[in-house]
Formats: sequence, structure tokens, C-alpha cells
Amino acid sequence: MTDTVSNGTVPGGDIFARRESEARSYCRGFPVTFTAARGAELTDAQGRRYIDFLAGCSSLNYGHNDPDMKAALMRHLDSDGIAHGLDLHTGPKAAFLRAFETHILQPRGMDHRLMFTGPTGANAVEAAMKIARKATGRTNVVAFTNGFHGVTLGALAATGNGYHRGGAGVGLGGVTRLPYDGYAEGVDSADLLERMLADPSSGLDAPAAILLETVQGEGGLNAARPEWLRRVAGLARDHGALLIVDDIQAGCGRAGGFFSFDGMGIAPDIVTMAKSLSGFGLPMALVLMRPEHDVLGPAEHNGTFRGNTHAFVTARVAIEKFWADDRFAAQFERKARIVAEGLEQLAALVPGARLKGRGMMRGADLLSGDLAGEICARAFQQGLIVETSGPHGEVVKILAPLTTPDEILREGLGILLEAARTTLDGNKIAAE
Amino acid sequence: MTDTVSNGTVPGGDIFARRESEARSYCRGFPVTFTAARGAELTDAQGRRYIDFLAGCSSLNYGHNDPDMKAALMRHLDSDGIAHGLDLHTGPKAAFLRAFETHILQPRGMDHRLMFTGPTGANAVEAAMKIARKATGRTNVVAFTNGFHGVTLGALAATGNGYHRGGAGVGLGGVTRLPYDGYAEGVDSADLLERMLADPSSGLDAPAAILLETVQGEGGLNAARPEWLRRVAGLARDHGALLIVDDIQAGCGRAGGFFSFDGMGIAPDIVTMAKSLSGFGLPMALVLMRPEHDVLGPAEHNGTFRGNTHAFVTARVAIEKFWADDRFAAQFERKARIVAEGLEQLAALVPGARLKGRGMMRGADLLSGDLAGEICARAFQQGLIVETSGPHGEVVKILAPLTTPDEILREGLGILLEAARTTLDGNKIAAE
Amino acid sequence: MTDTVSNGTVPGGDIFARRESEARSYCRGFPVTFTAARGAELTDAQGRRYIDFLAGCSSLNYGHNDPDMKAALMRHLDSDGIAHGLDLHTGPKAAFLRAFETHILQPRGMDHRLMFTGPTGANAVEAAMKIARKATGRTNVVAFTNGFHGVTLGALAATGNGYHRGGAGVGLGGVTRLPYDGYAEGVDSADLLERMLADPSSGLDAPAAILLETVQGEGGLNAARPEWLRRVAGLARDHGALLIVDDIQAGCGRAGGFFSFDGMGIAPDIVTMAKSLSGFGLPMALVLMRPEHDVLGPAEHNGTFRGNTHAFVTARVAIEKFWADDRFAAQFERKARIVAEGLEQLAALVPGARLKGRGMMRGADLLSGDLAGEICARAFQQGLIVETSGPHGEVVKILAPLTTPDEILREGLGILLEAARTTLDGNKIAAE
Amino acid sequence: MTDTVSNGTVPGGDIFARRESEARSYCRGFPVTFTAARGAELTDAQGRRYIDFLAGCSSLNYGHNDPDMKAALMRHLDSDGIAHGLDLHTGPKAAFLRAFETHILQPRGMDHRLMFTGPTGANAVEAAMKIARKATGRTNVVAFTNGFHGVTLGALAATGNGYHRGGAGVGLGGVTRLPYDGYAEGVDSADLLERMLADPSSGLDAPAAILLETVQGEGGLNAARPEWLRRVAGLARDHGALLIVDDIQAGCGRAGGFFSFDGMGIAPDIVTMAKSLSGFGLPMALVLMRPEHDVLGPAEHNGTFRGNTHAFVTARVAIEKFWADDRFAAQFERKARIVAEGLEQLAALVPGARLKGRGMMRGADLLSGDLAGEICARAFQQGLIVETSGPHGEVVKILAPLTTPDEILREGLGILLEAARTTLDGNKIAAE
Repeated sequence: MTDTVSNGTVPGGDIFARRESEARSYCRGFPVTFTAARGAELTDAQGRRYIDFLAGCSSLNYGHNDPDMKAALMRHLDSDGIAHGLDLHTGPKAAFLRAFETHILQPRGMDHRLMFTGPTGANAVEAAMKIARKATGRTNVVAFTNGFHGVTLGALAATGNGYHRGGAGVGLGGVTRLPYDGYAEGVDSADLLERMLADPSSGLDAPAAILLETVQGEGGLNAARPEWLRRVAGLARDHGALLIVDDIQAGCGRAGGFFSFDGMGIAPDIVTMAKSLSGFGLPMALVLMRPEHDVLGPAEHNGTFRGNTHAFVTARVAIEKFWADDRFAAQFERKARIVAEGLEQLAALVPGARLKGRGMMRGADLLSGDLAGEICARAFQQGLIVETSGPHGEVVKILAPLTTPDEILREGLGILLEAARTTLDGNKIAAE
Repeated sequence: MTDTVSNGTVPGGDIFARRESEARSYCRGFPVTFTAARGAELTDAQGRRYIDFLAGCSSLNYGHNDPDMKAALMRHLDSDGIAHGLDLHTGPKAAFLRAFETHILQPRGMDHRLMFTGPTGANAVEAAMKIARKATGRTNVVAFTNGFHGVTLGALAATGNGYHRGGAGVGLGGVTRLPYDGYAEGVDSADLLERMLADPSSGLDAPAAILLETVQGEGGLNAARPEWLRRVAGLARDHGALLIVDDIQAGCGRAGGFFSFDGMGIAPDIVTMAKSLSGFGLPMALVLMRPEHDVLGPAEHNGTFRGNTHAFVTARVAIEKFWADDRFAAQFERKARIVAEGLEQLAALVPGARLKGRGMMRGADLLSGDLAGEICARAFQQGLIVETSGPHGEVVKILAPLTTPDEILREGLGILLEAARTTLDGNKIAAE
Repeated sequence: MTDTVSNGTVPGGDIFARRESEARSYCRGFPVTFTAARGAELTDAQGRRYIDFLAGCSSLNYGHNDPDMKAALMRHLDSDGIAHGLDLHTGPKAAFLRAFETHILQPRGMDHRLMFTGPTGANAVEAAMKIARKATGRTNVVAFTNGFHGVTLGALAATGNGYHRGGAGVGLGGVTRLPYDGYAEGVDSADLLERMLADPSSGLDAPAAILLETVQGEGGLNAARPEWLRRVAGLARDHGALLIVDDIQAGCGRAGGFFSFDGMGIAPDIVTMAKSLSGFGLPMALVLMRPEHDVLGPAEHNGTFRGNTHAFVTARVAIEKFWADDRFAAQFERKARIVAEGLEQLAALVPGARLKGRGMMRGADLLSGDLAGEICARAFQQGLIVETSGPHGEVVKILAPLTTPDEILREGLGILLEAARTTLDGNKIAAE
Repeated sequence: MTDTVSNGTVPGGDIFARRESEARSYCRGFPVTFTAARGAELTDAQGRRYIDFLAGCSSLNYGHNDPDMKAALMRHLDSDGIAHGLDLHTGPKAAFLRAFETHILQPRGMDHRLMFTGPTGANAVEAAMKIARKATGRTNVVAFTNGFHGVTLGALAATGNGYHRGGAGVGLGGVTRLPYDGYAEGVDSADLLERMLADPSSGLDAPAAILLETVQGEGGLNAARPEWLRRVAGLARDHGALLIVDDIQAGCGRAGGFFSFDGMGIAPDIVTMAKSLSGFGLPMALVLMRPEHDVLGPAEHNGTFRGNTHAFVTARVAIEKFWADDRFAAQFERKARIVAEGLEQLAALVPGARLKGRGMMRGADLLSGDLAGEICARAFQQGLIVETSGPHGEVVKILAPLTTPDEILREGLGILLEAARTTLDGNKIAAE
């Protein structure tokens, strides 16, 4: 197999092919070397500009190198601020905690505590599952079809994706899989969950937790209805299970509110966060839990990098800049509408295609992974970074920074539509 | 329970007690708020200075805020360099790869490939176990008594510590536990391993891998003899198992060479690295594997933060500054001797106490977790950060930065000895 | 707690209370000491007669002490025939195999092979799951809500009953639970299965087998529709999974044909049998598999008692006497109708009650475990042995011997109806 | 592969090859069809006589068709005694319980209760493990190298044999493997167990039970020293683990006393029995546990055939005939000495060979599975049934009925020695 990056025109290309593992992935679809980035735009080694509709898989909700976060981080560096803080107390950590309490928790009446886990989303999910199991004395966790929660073995057990599950190499236990909202024709999945929870012979062991995303990002942008979420939350409560919302991809504003479940009438016991939490793309993860579920002992779940102080610095700025008032939210609806309208035009090109997702976490199901992939590849040639999701990669998925200026959103959507038209025309000609 | 940090003299103390989870740990032993750090010294909010013999549990082998790494990172930030790069190609990543190839791999004749996993040690161990299982088609992994490999469920199965294992809340499978070198009186653990591997009814399922640390950092600074390592390596090879060296704590110079096994006559199939890899304490992890074991498919093991580009920037500087020639190594022996001599004086105070570990990863087994803990607490009051390890916390463990100036090493050891003497005197008086 | 059997009027009662484990069960509901049995009737130590509508949970489909089987077994004993034959060749084993081939397999065009497992149903299920896993190289087994397959850990993983699952004391893995036919309102369970099998991100790992009962005996006499069975069989075939029918309770004529799926248009890859297989109530179990799935090596699944030669002797007679022609089947429909009519009268007494099951495996769901239990207890006082089943014990379940004379069927049903009327009258009075 | 049984001279041979699964095993080594048996002798379809040194793998300790048991069983049949009794009270069950209490438990001062499990040894082991897990609230079970406890998944996890373990097709968890007494040179396995139990970081999770055979029958006739057993029993007690002795093969007189541990100074919490328990080779299994560990609820561990009343009938006779006084034991030592002397002569033929086992459970380790197998095959041609055991089948193992007349013991040993000499002479000639 020839590696697309091994050509001489890409500085550094050789070293990737020679020394980096076959497990590398995104660089195969976007085979250039990136050197700089600001807001919603990246630049490659040839100086070419790209619009970023991927945003680090929702890790860069505020765009690249936000100037305020950058300035704060440079000041921190300049003053020899702590970089690696284990779980010691540091000034930036205290400041982040205060900002999070003031602007996120208190306005929502949440008395949750924060646990800083190893700085990956999967690590937060592992911790959340441990907490639920210890708090309830049960082992089983209900997770849903097409859910994605990470690939370390504890989290992977809850992930639906068969490719990732296949990588485990050992059995994955402790999780019962149930259909997500709207999963299969002729199946009301809340009815099924209710029946199984009530039936002592259903084979569904009493769950420690019900773990779900409100919008399944990797699973194809399936958005659960609020009424389904409320019903599941009620069933969890009635049956002594904790409700864990994995808000790693849908949180931090991606679906609208700071939490993806804001305004939906549910109050999760545990919330996992990562990705855009630091605001700057730096590794950071967090578990929120009610005080009565704060049951793990000191370092019972630990990890050397759980005090990434650089991330605390930028995360504090992110909270204070974007979530202290409603200016940010005010722009959200308009931008989300621009994206939705663009996707509607895209979907209109493919008979049977339909929109998926909500907020700024939207896509178009084009019914074919080949087609969606071809469109994204063509868009990349025209300077747009956008990826597919869904079980068969059939959904073109837009995760633009929430701060993307309207005109760049429109420019990116224009590239995408043009790529789609060209691809479809090409296919039509090929078919004739 | 009163929280020691909740007093008014510690800025920010209240917020930790109010909002941070009970899982916090180090901050209980060192209950001040740190604000700045450089080299082997930290400063707290009151301006007090501390010598750091903990070094982020060996994540800060080159000290805090190394000026060259700091400068490189500030330049990167200033130029809007990529912060979060998924697994895309970026300039800093290419530069790191080249430096790692030139200064680490090529001089050792290693054709290993690099896989950047989620940026925690546990994540690297999870990936390493997946690789070994996929490459061999087997599931069992042999791990050793007192080994510590992380707390996500895949890695936790290999970790010996019962407190952490107890946090799992579910069964931990796929691992067979065997005694480490010198574990029990009257037990030659290599003989036992050999016998069990050769015996089809031993109950030891044919292993995918044998996973070990050459010095068990958390397990009490148990250092395996080179001849034991060679024998285990030979048994792994003869029985079709991959040898995985977990060099997360002992690597990056801590035990002498860049790899803890340098010069020991073993050639691991897989090496896991994290902690000091970035040089600056930033989250970064790595799996090295031979090309023939590079079997995971694209993103089969993934994670959003596997391209922490800030870490690539500092990690490159660390390699080029410390490992491009042997000036760094030249000072190592002298510093290690200073530490050893200090620990010998400490051990001489406690009948039956003995030295453990090797290189700059050394400690004194004081036979009592209470005593060791009391000494460390008293040392902290005098401005020294040092912790215990071992099954009962009975080992005072020194993990000073490798770059600590000799006089600071001596100053810290002096504080430690004084703390020990005071403690022992106090105990003697109490006993009388 | 006072043990009902500890009174002086029951010979031997004391010894049970004193020395037998609390795990004993049926003897609590039927607290007398039985001494003899013939056909559908038992006698206790006081000489009292009982009609048997339990039939050893369908292990005595041909009644107690069938005279032809008994005569054959006495001849065998008299001639010093082998009792315990491991898996050696013995004359009675050869004779059983020939009879089974001639009267069961050949008429149905089945080329299946027979594997004699340890003589319990659970052991046959364990073997069947091993076969499917080895033949397919997969691990996952799909099992259904309310399925009951035994309580050894491999089989227990497939059993739905929470009380039994709770006894495991360890995690039960390798099984995915899906809803059985008609399980939950608003759920077409074949649609769900189809969707999950087709979706690589559903979290349903590609199954080695789909394991089901055509009528769930312990689960509450849920009878799957033939069209659902055909659809599931088709899905198994299309997705490379083996179809395992657990015919331990529903087979040997209980649901009509020798196999419960006779005439339903499905051809299972594997069938498990036990209970009435020996015809005489002697321990015996069997796995039928297609030649291409005969993959277990010699003794790979073994067990000392897999050659219970006494059982081979009686099992051969059972096949030749009842399945060599259609006289037995000719009476079946009439007897099944008598039972159904009796149960309809029972159900008519309780608003909302409904009939369940099919063939001679029928019951009435009385909506209340307390009520059903009280009726059965009262019936026992009047000389009828009958038990409940279902998740809440809410189904009065009749498993009379298939050979029960019509008049005894009617007599037993009369006792049951009278018990129901008395109970309901009593409850009505109590409520007033 | 040609099947040795498919020749016309073996009545019934065809049907086995045509219809019986490849999992059949003993019949491959002894490819004739047996028709009758009495005491220590069998007869095949050609009327040929065989001496039985296999005794149903110790299931026929009192020989085939003991006349007193046979007479009792025929009387029971003749009187329409219950055959299949679920766990109902029956006269024969009460009589067995009384005999077991009077002659086995009371003389030993054991207050244990009896639980009749599904009638296989594996089922008893599964129940024993459940009891220990429920009684202690722990999951881990310590089992030993070369232990054999059955092949259903719960029991198989404790079995060491890799061939059988490989049949699982899924991970086997919940068991930690440690070396048996004398397992590896340079390893004191009780020291290792003690160290690991005392060390909270050993990776040995606090065990629910320590499960062992006092003589490992399948594992190669390894006999533990009484002092090792006492030390392990003491460690179990000190660490809150139940001691489970699996006496399925070594019990019922095989190793001397009724229990293999009689007179050794240990008092197991739980004992599993099966094989020779019924005395007649009929399927029956039993778990003995102390009253305080009688924690399983009604039918929590169940099974249809747990009331094999025919077995109760013969088991009672076995107890009363052989264990009511010491006449049986009186002959045991003499017979055991005859066997030992014969095996010494065998071992003397092979340099390095040595005796193994104890009591009437003895063998000679001939260092080569090929040699041992060839000798057994040749012995069979001369009318002796004897098998090998051990990890490589290198141990010729004698399990003659305990009632074998001295002259038949000597006759069988003579055949064995002659077969060994002929084989060794043939090998010597071949080598020249």
C-alpha cells in the first residue's frame, strides 16, 4: 500500500510513514502537514488555508488559539506557573473551580462535585462507571446502541462500535445493551427498558447506571427526544440506577447549552466531560457527581496527568468568556440555523437523505458511506475539513467551532455543497 | 471530618473542600496551594519554597519549567501553532518523531514504530495489551506481584494494588499474576514461570504478553536483576509471548538510560512511555512496537487528545537537549550516588531498614508505613516534598528531578534525615 | 423459621431439616415424604395418593415407572449389565443410538450427531455453547428475556432469572440479552434483532449462536410464534450464527412432536435435550449437532457420568414404545385439549387471566403470584401436585405426564378448579 | 482417519462412528463393546474378560454391580419406588441421609449439611464456589496448578488443564492460580501463598475460597503433604477464605478414609463429592458445608436430576456396607501395598521413573506420555483396562476397585508389567 503522505512535497511526510503506527487515522483522510491555526481556520506547510468543520471532533468548540486563552496561558508560562500539578492544589485549579461553580453549577442549582480524572474522555467514563458501581453496589451498566464512550476496556464495554470493540482482544462485560431512542422500526425502546427493569427474569441485572449521550456524536448524530430522556431518567431513579450523561462530545455548548441536557428537564447524577472543556484543545477531563455519590477513596481512581494546569488556565478563561452571560448563546441559534439550512440543501441532492442531530452538532444522512466519504474527500481538496460518522460512515457531520463567523460557515457549506454536486454529477455520468 | 485545606490562610482552600471530589489525594499530604515552580523547587501562595523530591511521580524528570522547553512552547503559542491535532500530521509532531528516531531509536538499533495513544500511561498500557492480544491471537497477559500499570479496567487487571483493584466494581480478567523477582522467600519466580509455561495443565493459559516494570515504582521500588529480566525475556520469546516493558515511571532517564532496560541485554517487543515523555509535565503517552506487531487498524484504538501538540513541542526539546549526547548521563551517576548515600544514612537510623531501587529511583524501606508517613509529613513542614510507596507505604521514595543541582539534593536529603531523627526521637520518648 | 417437615407424622422429616441444605426447594411446597409412584400418581408414606401435574418438571413425560422401561431395566440389572460406562461403547448405548437414528433422526432427514454430555440439562447447554463458539470462532451468544438454560456459570449467563443469576457471585459474560417474541408492548423483537445484527455499531457482537426455547417453560410458558421462529432462524443463518434450540423442557413430546419445533419450518443447528430423554427420570443429557459443527476434540468437554447406561436402556424403550409410530401422537391432541379446557375454566374465574403455552405445556396467567401460589397449595391439600412459573410465579402451570389417562387429567383439573374457587371465595370474604 | 470401531466384528461399532460426536474419548483407547460387568471385571460382546483398573475413573470404588446394592435397587424398582424425585422428600433419600449422618458425619464430629446438586462433579464444584462467594461476599477463588474440577464454565475456571480450558471459547475469570505442593523446583508454594495473602499489592484479591484436591487425580497423582494441607488450611482460616476440598476423585475410600483428608488434621469448610458416592456408578453429587455457610436460597442453585432416587438407594447400601465398621479399611492397606509394589516393579524398568499418589490412587511417572500410552494400549490387548494421567499423559494410573480381590490385583499388575517389558524391549530393538 502506498502511503499518500510519503511524497516529497509534504515536509515531514516520510517520518510519519516510517515511524508512526498503522493505528493513525485522521491523517489518512487529510494527508497534509498542518502548521498553524486560528479560529475556524488552519494553515498547512504550503501555506494553504483550510476551513475547519471538524474542530478536533468537538474539542475546539471555541476555535483554535482563542486569543484570550492564549494570552492567559502565555502569562502563566512566563511566570513559571505550575505545568504538572498531580492533584495538588494550585492557584489555576482553584480559579477554574470557582469559575465553574459560579457560572455553571450555581445557576443550574447543581450541588455536584468535580473529579479530575486522567485527561481523556475515556478515563472520565471509566471513573463514572466505577463511581456508579461503588455507590450502588451493583455491577451492570445499561448502555445504548450506537453509543460511543471510549476504547479503554471499561469504557469500551459500553461503546457499541464493533470495530473498536473488536480491538479489545478479551471479553467485554458488565454492560447490557439496549436500543436508543428511535433505533429500530416497531420498537419503543423506553417501553422495552421499562419492561425489562420491572421483570426479575428479563436477564437485565439491576443496573448501577444508565449511561447515555443525549446526541450520539460518533454513532451518527442520533438525537434523543427530550421526552425519551425524561422517561429514561425517571426509570433510572425508580430502579435505583444512577443516570450518567456522557457529555464529552455534546457538551460545552455543542448542542446549545453548556450541558447538552440544559432545559430538558433531566438532572443527571453523573456527567462526564472532556474534549472542549479546556477550551483550547488541551487534555482535560472531568466527572461531575452529586455529593452523595462522591464515594471513591483518595486516589482510588488516579492518574499522573489529572492536574494538567495549563488546561485549568485556559478552561477558566473559556468559562468566564463564554458562559458568564448569554451573549454566546444569543449567537448560537443563528449559526445553528445556517448550518441546518446548508445541510438541508445537501440532503435535497440525495433522494431519501435526511438531517440528523441538533444545535451545532448536525449532519446529513446520505444513505451511503461511499458517497459521504467521496464528498468529504472532494471538499478537502477545496479547503474544507469535514468528516463522516454513523455505523457505515453515511452521515456527513459538521462540527464547526461555535465561534465560526457566519461568512466562514457559509463559505464552508458552499464548498461542501459544490463537492456534493460534483460528486453526484460524476457518479451520474459514470452510471450512464 | 475537617479538611486541612479549609483554613483561611490557604487561598482557594475552601473551593477544593467544597467542590472537589473525595478522590483527591496528594493535596491531602501537601495541603498548601502551589503557584509557581522552576527546576527542583516550588513556591506556594505564601511565597514559601519547597524542594521537590516527588517530581510529579517522575513526570518532571527534567524539573519544572525547563527554560528551553518553555521558550519553545511560548514561540509555538505566539505563532498560533496547533494545540490540538487529533492524529493529523503537524510540524511539531514530525519534528518530535525525527528527534526520537535520531537520538533514541537509531543509536539502539530499534526499528520500533510509535503509536500515540490517549495521553495517559494507563491508555498506553491498554493499547499495548490490545496490540499483544491481536498480534498473538491470545488473551492472557502475565503480570507480576506489586506491578502498577494504571486504573482503567484493562490496565487495572494488570495492576496488583488491591485498593485500586477494589475500585473496579467488576471482575478483572485476562491476566495471570506471578511473583516478581525476589518476591517471596523460598521462591525462584523465574523457575515457577518456566515450569508453568512448559506445563499444559498448569492453568497458565498461553500468554499474549509478559508485562513488567524493570523497577516497580509504586510497588515499593523493587528492582529486578538483569539476569532475571533476561531469563523472562527468553521465556517470553520461547513461548510466543510478547515482552512488554512498562517504562512509564522508570523510563526517560529515571533509572539511568533513556530506557530503564538500556544495557541489560533485553529487547522488548513493546515499550510503554508517558510521565516524563513530554519533558514538561504535559500529558503525552506512547507505545513503541516492532513493525511486525503494528497490527491495530486505523483508529482501532483512538482518543481525541492523542495529538497534544504542545507536548510534542516540549518533548522534542527534551530529547534534543538531554539525549543527543552523553553530558546528561555523565552527571547521573554522581547524583544517584548522592541520593543513595543520603538514603543509607536514613536507613541506618532504623534497625532492619534497607535500600531499594536503582538509579534516581531509590528509597529506603523503613518497615513501617506509619513511620515512613510521619517522616514525610515532618519533612514537608520543613519544605521538602517526598512521598512513600510500597504495599504498606513503608518505603520513603525519592524521585527528585534528574537535573536537581547537587546542593539542592543534599539540602533535601538533610531535611529528610533531620525529619527522620526528630520523628524517631519523638517515638522513643513516647515509648519511654 | 419452623420447618413444615419437622413434625412427627412425616417419617424421615427430621433428617431433612437437620442435615439437608437450605437450597432445597420443592419439598417446601409439597412437604410430605413420597414412597412410590406409577404413571401419573404418587403415594406418600401415609399411603395417600397424589395426582402428578408436575411430572418432574417435564422429566417424566411418560409417567412414573413405565412398566416396559422398568422391565428392561430390571433385566439389565439382573444380567449384570454395565451401569457406569464412561463414554465406552456398550450394548445399550449402541441400541439407543440405533433407535434414535431410526425413529427420530431419519424420519426428519436430520444428519445430526449425538454428544452425550454430563447428565444434566445445564451441562448440555454448556456443551452446546462451547460447540457454537468453537465452530464459529466467535464468543457472543444471543439469549432471550425469560429464557432458562441452567445454573452452572456458562449456562447461567444465558438464563434470565435474576434470582438464579444473583447466585453466580461473579460476572456472567458472553451473552447478549434480547426480547423474546411478544415480550414488550410496542416492540417487534425480530425487527430489533435484525436491526442490531445489521448494524456494526449496535454493540451486538457478531453472535456464535442464537439460543432459545420454543416455549419458555420456567419463564412463564411463553410460546413463540412459528413465524417469529422462522425469522430468527433466517437471521441466524444470514449472519453466520448457529441456531441452538434448548428443547430440554419442551422436547420429548411435551409440546407435541418429539422436538418442540417439529413442523415449524426451522432446522436448528444444535438441539439440547435432557429431562424426559431417558423416559424414566434417570439423569441423561444430549446435544445434537450437524456433522460440520462436530468440532470438540476427544473429551474436550467431558464428565464421568456421561455414560449412564441405565438411562440408555430406558431411553431406548421410550423411543421404540412412543415414537416408532403415531399412536402416541394421536392421543396427544385430545389430552392437550382437555388440559386447555380446564385451564380456560380456571382463567375464567380471574378477570384478566389468560392461557399460556401450547401442547401439554400449558398454564393460566392469574396475574398474581400470591393467588397462583395459594391455589396450588390448596390443590396439594386435595391431592394434586402442581406448580407455578413465570417471573412472579403468576402462572399456574400444568406439566402432567403425556400418558395421563383422560379421567385422571379431568380429576386433577377438577381439584385445581375447586381449589381456585375456594381460594377466590376466601379472598372475597376476606376483602369484605 | 479410520475409526477403529467401524469394523464388522464389533457389534454396534458402526453406529458409534456414524452418529456419536467426535468428543467421545475412552472408547478410542478401549475400542470394544462392553456388555456386562461384575466386581473388577468386564465382559465384551465377544465374551472376552477384562480386568478393570480404571473403575469409571474412581466412580466404581466398590466394583461393578455390587450384589447388595443391586438387590436393593431391584427391590426398589419392583415396588415402584420413586426414580426421579426432584428435591422432594422420599424414603430412600431420608434413609441415605440417616446413614450418611450416622456413619460418616457423626463419627468425625462434622455438623456439615448436605446439598444435592445436579448429579455431576462439576455441578457440585459450581455450587461450592457459589456458596463460598455468597458466604464471604468475595469473588476470587484460589485454585492450583494441575487441579481438575470439571468443565462447565464456573468449574473450568478452576481447572488447570489447557486442553479443557481451551474449549471454553470465552474468558474464564474469578480464579487465581497458584502452585500446588511441590510444583516447581525452588518454590515453596505455601510460602508464596502466605506472602501473597499478606500483601495488599500482590494482585491476589482476597479469596472467597481456596479450592484443592488432596491428591490430584487427573493432574498426575500429585499428593500434597499433610503439613502443606494444614498450612494452607490455616492460611485460609486466617484470611477469611473457605477451604473447599474437592474429594470427587480421591474421596469415597480411594485415598484411604471415606474422605481423602481423614486423619490429616484439616477440617474443610466445604467438601464436594460425586463419582463413587452412589456406590453403583449412578449419577449423584453432593456438597457438604458447615451450617453457617448454608447460604444459598431455595433452588438458588437447582437442577432437575438432583433427586436421583436410584442413586440414593445404592448410596445408602454403600455407606452401610463399607463404612459402618472398619472391616473395609482393614483390607485397604494390604491392597494398596500390592498396588504400590507392582508399580515399583514397573518404575524400576524405566530409569528416572517414580511412584506417585497414595492409597489406591497410585501411579508410576514414566517420564514419557508416548511410552505410558503404548504400555496401556498393549495391556488392553492382554485384557487390562488402565489409563494414563498427568499433563503429558506420562503417568500410568491405577484406579482399581477397592474391593478387587488380591489375586486379580496381582493378575492385572502382571499384565501391566508384561506389557511394559514387551514395549520397552520393542523400543530397545527399534533403537538398535
